[in-house]
Amino acid sequence: MKYKHKTMLTVLALFLSMVTLFAQPPRGPFVRSPEVHSDHSVTFRYLAPDAKEVKLSGQFQKEPVMMTKGDQGIWSVKVGPVKPDIYPYSFQVDGVNVMDPANVAFFPNERFKGSLVDIPGDTPLIHTMQDVPHGTITYEYYQASKGTTGKLVVYTPPGYDYNSSTKYPVFYLISGTTDTEEDWFKVGKTNNILDNLIAQQKARPMIIVMPYGNIDARVAEQKGGQKPNDPVRGDAEGDRRQDDFGDDLVNFVIPYIDANYRTIKNKDSRAIGGFSRGGGQTLRTAFGHMDTFSWICCYSAYLTTEVMEKTYPFIAGNVAKTNKDLKLLWVSVGDEDFLYKETMVFLDYLKLHKVNHKSLISGGGHTWMNTKLYLSETAQMLFK
Amino acid sequence: MKYKHKTMLTVLALFLSMVTLFAQPPRGPFVRSPEVHSDHSVTFRYLAPDAKEVKLSGQFQKEPVMMTKGDQGIWSVKVGPVKPDIYPYSFQVDGVNVMDPANVAFFPNERFKGSLVDIPGDTPLIHTMQDVPHGTITYEYYQASKGTTGKLVVYTPPGYDYNSSTKYPVFYLISGTTDTEEDWFKVGKTNNILDNLIAQQKARPMIIVMPYGNIDARVAEQKGGQKPNDPVRGDAEGDRRQDDFGDDLVNFVIPYIDANYRTIKNKDSRAIGGFSRGGGQTLRTAFGHMDTFSWICCYSAYLTTEVMEKTYPFIAGNVAKTNKDLKLLWVSVGDEDFLYKETMVFLDYLKLHKVNHKSLISGGGHTWMNTKLYLSETAQMLFK
Repeated sequence: MKYKHKTMLTVLALFLSMVTLFAQPPRGPFVRSPEVHSDHSVTFRYLAPDAKEVKLSGQFQKEPVMMTKGDQGIWSVKVGPVKPDIYPYSFQVDGVNVMDPANVAFFPNERFKGSLVDIPGDTPLIHTMQDVPHGTITYEYYQASKGTTGKLVVYTPPGYDYNSSTKYPVFYLISGTTDTEEDWFKVGKTNNILDNLIAQQKARPMIIVMPYGNIDARVAEQKGGQKPNDPVRGDAEGDRRQDDFGDDLVNFVIPYIDANYRTIKNKDSRAIGGFSRGGGQTLRTAFGHMDTFSWICCYSAYLTTEVMEKTYPFIAGNVAKTNKDLKLLWVSVGDEDFLYKETMVFLDYLKLHKVNHKSLISGGGHTWMNTKLYLSETAQMLFK
Repeated sequence: MKYKHKTMLTVLALFLSMVTLFAQPPRGPFVRSPEVHSDHSVTFRYLAPDAKEVKLSGQFQKEPVMMTKGDQGIWSVKVGPVKPDIYPYSFQVDGVNVMDPANVAFFPNERFKGSLVDIPGDTPLIHTMQDVPHGTITYEYYQASKGTTGKLVVYTPPGYDYNSSTKYPVFYLISGTTDTEEDWFKVGKTNNILDNLIAQQKARPMIIVMPYGNIDARVAEQKGGQKPNDPVRGDAEGDRRQDDFGDDLVNFVIPYIDANYRTIKNKDSRAIGGFSRGGGQTLRTAFGHMDTFSWICCYSAYLTTEVMEKTYPFIAGNVAKTNKDLKLLWVSVGDEDFLYKETMVFLDYLKLHKVNHKSLISGGGHTWMNTKLYLSETAQMLFK
């Protein structure tokens, strides 16, 4: 008799045991969250029988909203309809910020923890996985600068594995401050966007290489010592950090990719882009290596006039050469982005000096909703 | 003058802005956590000026420990020395369970949120990234059962890309209840373990395929309807779910891998293994497809005598054939695992019926510390 229960009954015990270790409260009803409704409204739920106040904080709304306690201690709130997109959100439980325990989709970040809610459109959005051929995402480790091992996330387009002689152009794509090398994949949905654009014949098949942006942090982690506690700063030390990134990319990442992937190894088949800090790194790396990249995509970032005049005077100084060297210089920003004004100044500088460029001023702020939009727009221009 | 500040000053503003959206409290000092000391003790820190009580919960200790509030509202506790390994942990802030906001290493799971602390050994542990040739991890999407798109995480060994004609054996490796397809990579460190074992010539180069284990949840997510709120159950419906997994693996995953990777396509070059629910799925899938796998690795799981007698009577009934068909039947469990007794009963059943097998009873419980140990032991036996 002692053997008569089946495997899965004890696995239920296992599940409860694991919950005991981590979840709060340790046991209770299963919670479905987020629940996206067909009218694009969303119900969020959080189990907290003993909490006094639970709020929902999300990038689809200006301010956190109060949640209401219901049966079994499950707090909930229904919001929207919300414009279809993928949004970061979190709960504030008695003032403590938490991810949604019931949701596995998360925002990789070194300083904050957020979950992601995906509100599908009535027709598929460009970042939605559709029934088209899929490329793959590969996590790579490479010998990086300063004696460290670096991490890369690499997108290869559909058919890459089958076409063993086809060579591809490469887009180096950098995330922002406190992001990791995973954000363009996990939050930016680079693979879905490219799969869909390629299936629609709107983008050329390309390889996309997504590096980690904080060289100092990697050195501290692997070689000992303190991680930099001021990830960004406006002095010579800040410039040195930016340029350390460029050195790593040009002298270690690109040779690694060219040795291990079927790439077209020339300037006109190489693009660089990035969001936020990654946008600044994009501009500095590209302007600092004008023989390496012909395509530049700067999302929600800029360089100051002072930096342009002092460090990169040749961009405006020999504009004929600049315009010949660059096949695309793209700058985009949201009209509610806190970098909007500075980015407009940068655009004015480019206009004043007749540096060819394309720009997009979108609605919204300094968000990954805009970042996905910018990637989907620029990916259609590259290598054409 | 209005342009004279540099890019990075505004990126600092950006960082603070993003912190405002997610972190709690919104602004404050940078927090280093976890800080692992050379004597294997660890300091954990959490910024919460307004919290009344903060505890540390970690799988390196039996009970949560209180943290102490210090300067600037940073709570901290120093624990250990702790036996070197990678451990899940979380904070309990006024009773609310949270991941460590300062730590990017996390435990992918559908129900709880935990961070990971890596305490290195004085000599490198088998799961520690070392200066050896590295394989790669690839995220794949495949046409799966029931009209869905499935996800796979695939390890290819060092040199896979260079040896364009070498074919490899394949190990299908399944995670546990509420885990995702990422856990063997992110928590189990499959790639590091194999890289190191292959460099030491202790394991054969192999491909490892890590699927997602919950078919019903995938169908609900992609086709609509409620996700199952009882992930495991002990009735016919539970068996159906287990067998749905096996059908997906045998009829969709294996053909996809064989079509897209350079695999050796026979039974003796195919292994299956898994932890917890994945261990149960391993046994059912292998016993249900005795022509498909020659190597079986069951970690912290078992089948009951009733199931063995009713569903798989031929295993003990024709033991000569079983022992000829299987090159390895491995069963391991921790002596503090809540499934210890049931697993010992399963081992007794195998002994009684003279079914060839190998077993390991380790210290500890139903943990990923043990899971990594079991992988590193069994990977050395496979395909030899």
